[in-house]
Amino acid sequence: MNQKRPRAIIFDVFGSVVDWRTSLIDELTAFGQTRGILADWTALVDAWRGEYVPSMKRVAAGELPWMTLDELHRASLDKLVVEQEIKGLSESDLVHMTLGWHRLKPWPDSVAGLNRLKSRYIISPLSNGNVSLLVNMAKGSNLPWDLVLGSDIFGYFKPAPETYLGAARLLGLEPGEVMMAAAHNADLKAAKALGLMTAFFVRPTEYGPAQKYDLEPRGDWDYIASDIEDLASKLGV
Amino acid sequence: MNQKRPRAIIFDVFGSVVDWRTSLIDELTAFGQTRGILADWTALVDAWRGEYVPSMKRVAAGELPWMTLDELHRASLDKLVVEQEIKGLSESDLVHMTLGWHRLKPWPDSVAGLNRLKSRYIISPLSNGNVSLLVNMAKGSNLPWDLVLGSDIFGYFKPAPETYLGAARLLGLEPGEVMMAAAHNADLKAAKALGLMTAFFVRPTEYGPAQKYDLEPRGDWDYIASDIEDLASKLGV
Repeated sequence: MNQKRPRAIIFDVFGSVVDWRTSLIDELTAFGQTRGILADWTALVDAWRGEYVPSMKRVAAGELPWMTLDELHRASLDKLVVEQEIKGLSESDLVHMTLGWHRLKPWPDSVAGLNRLKSRYIISPLSNGNVSLLVNMAKGSNLPWDLVLGSDIFGYFKPAPETYLGAARLLGLEPGEVMMAAAHNADLKAAKALGLMTAFFVRPTEYGPAQKYDLEPRGDWDYIASDIEDLASKLGV
Repeated sequence: MNQKRPRAIIFDVFGSVVDWRTSLIDELTAFGQTRGILADWTALVDAWRGEYVPSMKRVAAGELPWMTLDELHRASLDKLVVEQEIKGLSESDLVHMTLGWHRLKPWPDSVAGLNRLKSRYIISPLSNGNVSLLVNMAKGSNLPWDLVLGSDIFGYFKPAPETYLGAARLLGLEPGEVMMAAAHNADLKAAKALGLMTAFFVRPTEYGPAQKYDLEPRGDWDYIASDIEDLASKLGV
């Protein structure tokens, strides 16, 4: 750890800023009750997120054309609804469920921590979500981003270098003036390899009570914090 | 005029949200006094802005490769410093002067009007400025954008269709759900031709006391307002 300070902080979003798993399980459970649709919504959510990395890898490998995360989420959902034999969903239900990713809720420290950081630093998501997903999420939960960097701006998903370096380029900064902040060691490893600063904070229940990964920092990150409020404290705001 | 409402409002910035002319004349006059550099700063600023459209047209025509507005501003400044025989400017002076475009000040109604509009609508610049210019300007003057759409995201300057349609695409909206708001009829004409909604407000002193253009709406715009606060009122917030 050093005391060098970044000019801008770019955040991973899913799991790092928002609690996708609890948000979606809660929303879909209520939705299923309202619509009278039976399903194991927890199993659906975990399987849906399980498709996340493989689906982006198919785009990166050229097996699929570029498409937004919204489109990948919808394709994964269509597949899982069949596999898990969930009956009675209309087209508008499937649209509504896919847009559930736009309505994810922040962890308890996220909004306060981001507001503190915004007072001195440029703050932005650097997310595999598309811009509209990230903007709708921010509007719904008061995430105070200065700008919104989604994967569809670059036409690449993380960990492609075009995303991290593209963020620095658009910010008019050197990579070493930009800090990637995430609860995921792999994201930070990719950013650090390109010269960005790094900050880790743990989200021990992102994947539920039996989470096995990312329970501790596994790299020589510039800042290690317990959450985003603690990161703000360590960055002097 | 109709009462249809947009989902998102994208703003022209130079002249529409910020007063580039007074901002730059004031800053450069003070800078010249501090540094002991003699120049007709008003003439420099007017000529600098005079290079704006021609320089972007050279990029659009392929005479110049893609470059950011920061880079075009610097090239124009270098030329004008020679033409206007301004002596004694160091490299760091020229960098500082070029970054003056990042420090432009809003018109008196802009911040309050944008905050009102943000309560119900997605608001973003759609500017020929680069993202870093727009972010630094927003940080310096509390412009409360939900996201920042600069020309370097698209690799095109307005009035290229890629900018207006690219904004709608990134917002996940149809062009007709997005409203271009500007003090410039030509900007609105280009947006309307692509199916966007349009809002005009006048900035009668943008080009100084002898302004001849854009003193009134010259098109069938969806909303016509006296300024951004009035636009907020007409949009029900």
